Amino acid sequence: MSDQIQPVLSIPELHDFLAREFPQVTGEFEVTEVAPSRLKVRLVPADKHLRPGGTVSGPTLFSLADCAVYLAIIAHVGEEALAVTTNASIDFMRKPVADRDLVADVRLLKLGRGLAVGDVGITSAESDALVARATLTYSRPRG
Amino acid sequence: MSDQIQPVLSIPELHDFLAREFPQVTGEFEVTEVAPSRLKVRLVPADKHLRPGGTVSGPTLFSLADCAVYLAIIAHVGEEALAVTTNASIDFMRKPVADRDLVADVRLLKLGRGLAVGDVGITSAESDALVARATLTYSRPRG
Amino acid sequence: MSDQIQPVLSIPELHDFLAREFPQVTGEFEVTEVAPSRLKVRLVPADKHLRPGGTVSGPTLFSLADCAVYLAIIAHVGEEALAVTTNASIDFMRKPVADRDLVADVRLLKLGRGLAVGDVGITSAESDALVARATLTYSRPRG
Amino acid sequence: MSDQIQPVLSIPELHDFLAREFPQVTGEFEVTEVAPSRLKVRLVPADKHLRPGGTVSGPTLFSLADCAVYLAIIAHVGEEALAVTTNASIDFMRKPVADRDLVADVRLLKLGRGLAVGDVGITSAESDALVARATLTYSRPRG
Repeated sequence: MSDQIQPVLSIPELHDFLAREFPQVTGEFEVTEVAPSRLKVRLVPADKHLRPGGTVSGPTLFSLADCAVYLAIIAHVGEEALAVTTNASIDFMRKPVADRDLVADVRLLKLGRGLAVGDVGITSAESDALVARATLTYSRPRG
Repeated sequence: MSDQIQPVLSIPELHDFLAREFPQVTGEFEVTEVAPSRLKVRLVPADKHLRPGGTVSGPTLFSLADCAVYLAIIAHVGEEALAVTTNASIDFMRKPVADRDLVADVRLLKLGRGLAVGDVGITSAESDALVARATLTYSRPRG
Repeated sequence: MSDQIQPVLSIPELHDFLAREFPQVTGEFEVTEVAPSRLKVRLVPADKHLRPGGTVSGPTLFSLADCAVYLAIIAHVGEEALAVTTNASIDFMRKPVADRDLVADVRLLKLGRGLAVGDVGITSAESDALVARATLTYSRPRG
Repeated sequence: MSDQIQPVLSIPELHDFLAREFPQVTGEFEVTEVAPSRLKVRLVPADKHLRPGGTVSGPTLFSLADCAVYLAIIAHVGEEALAVTTNASIDFMRKPVADRDLVADVRLLKLGRGLAVGDVGITSAESDALVARATLTYSRPRG
């Protein structure tokens, strides 16, 4: 009756995957929740992510959105040969709260054999106001 | 604490507005719910909306998304000199269920003095599976 | 050396295709040019496309962009089982000139076995100023 | 007759601006051409931009697109209080050629008092095949 998809990887398994495949972002991204068709990632902003004024840059928000949807797909299909981003649209709504972590909340909208689509809302930790939202499409390799 | 915005127009007022400003779509779009930062519109597909196979065309889904977000803005700011769409991104996820109405569920993400942004999910009536999603940005005229 | 793709259908063949598959838009869309990786379509706005003030509506511009890219794909791969739009982004830059035809100029950016991507600029006839631009992705059925 | 906008800053002035405002990317981005409504930027990929397999990551391509359009705006309006990205859509078409610089070619589509829109195509140096394309909208502060 529901379209929810059950995850197949746990948070520790996802962290192992990240450390192995994306060592350059280890310690930046932390998966905090995995649920049917959902996943949450937290980013602790470092100096390199900041713009003058202490706010996080657009490319950092894009990077968080891209990584979060990618992890959501992996969490629900298992590790698979590289899915690649084919398209992304992102809207920037308001500045992040200074000195706060960023939280990306992903909802998988489609997990087809060819394409996967995820929607992601980004907020400052402990805030409901959206900093940015994005939708990303990934092309999945055919076995 | 919350970022929810209270609506200022009722459903009958929105239907009056539609009939007056968009007589060509009267009878096609029906506002079914207005709530803080939210609005729902129902489209009863007519012959002209259909593609071979009885499914609703992409442009019809775009038109529904565009109109629904526009109505959501009007519902929350009142009738105002023409806001214009500046940008839209839309993802088509799956075919609508044949012979069912379509429901557009709008969430206003931003209602600034210059720009308004709305997110909309479209489903077939009585189904949870997203047919399409879109985000639209409107530029509001400066008084 | 070049990435240009040669078209396989002529303008009359495309008009036959349109008349057969999309009888509801016959007489509205006219293909005026087919070239390697390119195609141009002209729309003669009818009353139903107009907004108050005599300008063409956003959904009409979307419909023109969607149809133009679809025709560009068909022109370069031949008639094939239904390719479906998976994603579109569209930017509206300025109002069309009143009482002028609209011209959609498509460039195919990718024509892969799985996905096709087209970019389209829309101008008022005899003007260089972009009214709108869009990028659309189509998923091609696997044989 | 033309909608082309004349640039007001030279390449050395743009490099000064970059070094002053974005010291963290100095040496990565090089403006190679400024022309009416146009600007080209070259990125020399460093280790931190690479994905396994030696290809450049999606976020790096986004960062290049975002920076290139921003520089194009500054080149045509002069240094101004921070314009902010409000929306971006990006399509990834094919992998960059390994060990080649990336070239971003920007065309300004609109430079209004409120919003500026730029279109950008990204290729590997000495190649015509698009690696990615993007359209970005910036909101310009009101004086």
